[in-house]
Amino acid sequence: MQQLAYYNGRVGAPEEMTVPFLDRVSFFGDGVYDATMSRNYHIYLLDEHIDRLYRSAAALRIEIPMTKAQMAATLNDLVSRMDTGNNFVYWQVTRGTGPRDHAFPEGAPNLWAYIFPREMSERGTTLTLISREDTRFFHCDVKTLNLIPSVMAAQAAREAGCDETVFHRGSRVTECAHSNIHILRGGVFRTAPADNLILPGIARAHLLSACARLGIPAREEPFTMDELREADEVIVSSSGSPCMRATALDGAPIGGRDPETLARLQDAVWGEFFAATN
Amino acid sequence: MQQLAYYNGRVGAPEEMTVPFLDRVSFFGDGVYDATMSRNYHIYLLDEHIDRLYRSAAALRIEIPMTKAQMAATLNDLVSRMDTGNNFVYWQVTRGTGPRDHAFPEGAPNLWAYIFPREMSERGTTLTLISREDTRFFHCDVKTLNLIPSVMAAQAAREAGCDETVFHRGSRVTECAHSNIHILRGGVFRTAPADNLILPGIARAHLLSACARLGIPAREEPFTMDELREADEVIVSSSGSPCMRATALDGAPIGGRDPETLARLQDAVWGEFFAATN
Repeated sequence: MQQLAYYNGRVGAPEEMTVPFLDRVSFFGDGVYDATMSRNYHIYLLDEHIDRLYRSAAALRIEIPMTKAQMAATLNDLVSRMDTGNNFVYWQVTRGTGPRDHAFPEGAPNLWAYIFPREMSERGTTLTLISREDTRFFHCDVKTLNLIPSVMAAQAAREAGCDETVFHRGSRVTECAHSNIHILRGGVFRTAPADNLILPGIARAHLLSACARLGIPAREEPFTMDELREADEVIVSSSGSPCMRATALDGAPIGGRDPETLARLQDAVWGEFFAATN
Repeated sequence: MQQLAYYNGRVGAPEEMTVPFLDRVSFFGDGVYDATMSRNYHIYLLDEHIDRLYRSAAALRIEIPMTKAQMAATLNDLVSRMDTGNNFVYWQVTRGTGPRDHAFPEGAPNLWAYIFPREMSERGTTLTLISREDTRFFHCDVKTLNLIPSVMAAQAAREAGCDETVFHRGSRVTECAHSNIHILRGGVFRTAPADNLILPGIARAHLLSACARLGIPAREEPFTMDELREADEVIVSSSGSPCMRATALDGAPIGGRDPETLARLQDAVWGEFFAATN
C-alpha cells in the first residue's frame, strides 16, 4: 500500500478510512500515541517506543488489551504491507467507545495506526526556530493526543518561515512543539531533566547514550533562554530528526561554535539508525 | 430519533455514525465545542452558546465556514427530529481533515453535533465534591476538545462516590472538571474572575445577572480552598445544572448556612430556564 490506516483490525487507505463517531478521541482527545521511523521494513527502536506507549497509557489508566509482543507483531505486519520500507510509523490507543461522559467508558481501548512513506532527516539539514511561552498542561511527559498548544506553536513556526518553536516557562527552556532541545556549551551536552515538563524523547535518550559512549559530559538540568542564545551549538531531536543543528532563534543566529562535537553526535545517532535498519 | 449524531450534513444514530480517520480531532483533539439543554424543542440560550463557540474557534484560529444564523438553524433542525424536546444539545467544530501534520491543514473545518435526551437537573439535587491540583493548560477560557485532565478528575470523583472535582492552583480555586464553582459568604456571591484559568460559563454569567437583579452583591475575584471550606454556601454551575448546592468537600461537610440566598438564586435561574423554554 502507498499509505495505510488501521483501526481495530480494519486496514485501508487513510483518506477513505472511517472510525466511530463515539470513539473517546472525538470529544476528549482521550488517548496516547507513539511514532518512529522504519527503514528497509525494520521499525527503528520499536520496543522502546512500545514501552513508552504503555507508560503513557498507564499514566492515563488506559489498559491496553494486548501484549507488547502482539502490538509489535501487528505493527510489523502493517509495515510489511507497504510499497516502501521507509516510513513514518504512527500508532495510538484511545480509551474506548461510548456515550459522551467524562468518566471512563465500559468498552475496551481502540488501537489505531497510520503509516506513510518518509525518510529519516538528512544529518546536514539545519533548522530555524522561534520561541513562545509554554502554556501547556503539566503532563508533558505523557504522549497524549491533547496537542492543541503544539498545533498552534507549529503553525506559528510555519508562518514565520521557521521549522520549530521553542517553548519556555518563564526563562526556562522546556522543549519544542514536537521535538526535544539541547545545547552544547564548553564541550558539555545539556538537556532539560525528564520531569513532567518535557517528553522523555527516545532520540534524547539515545543522544545521552551517545554522549556516554563518546566521553562527552552530559548534564540533565534546566537551561535558560539566555543559555540557549549563547550556546556553542543548539540541537533539536525527534525520532525522525534525531540530532539537528539549529542555526537561528527568533531571527538571530545561534550556535555554530562547536561543529566537531556536534558531528561526533550526529555520526553516532545516524550510525546507530543505519546499523539497526539494514 | 432517540439519539442523533451529525457530521457535515450526515445524520444517524450515534453508535452507527462514522467519521473520517483523518479528521484533526483524531490526532490532536484539534477542535472546540459547546453544549446546552433543550426543553420543549427550544434550545436554551442558543445564541449565547453559539457566540462562545465562535470565540473559542477564533482563539484557535479555526474559521467556521457558516454564519451563526446558519449554525442555529442547523441545530434547531436537528432538535426538531428528536422524539423528545428535552435534550442535551452538544456540537463541535474541528479544524478540518488532512494528513497528520501539526500545522494547519488545507481543508475546511468540520461540524459535528450529538443530541440525546436529558432533563435539566432538579434544583433540589445536591452535589458532593473532591479536590485536586489543577494541572491543566493555561487556555481554560477556550472550550477545547483537549480534555484529558477533566476526564481524569471526573473519573476520580466517580470512584470516590462524588459528583465533581474542584481544581485549585495552589490554594486558589479555579473551577471544577466540567462546571464553574462559586461561594456565598456574608451574603456576597463570589466567583473566580473570567481569566484564562476558567471557562466563562454561561450559567455563571446568568448567576451574576441574577445577583444584579436580586440585589445580591457579587465579586469576581479569586477565592481559596480555605474560603471554599468556610463558605456559607458552595454553588456549582453548568448549563445542565445551573445552580447546585454542594454539601461536602473531600468528605467533610461544607455550606448549608445561607439557604435563603441560595434559594433566591435557584428561583431566578430555574425560572429563567422554564420561561424561555415554554
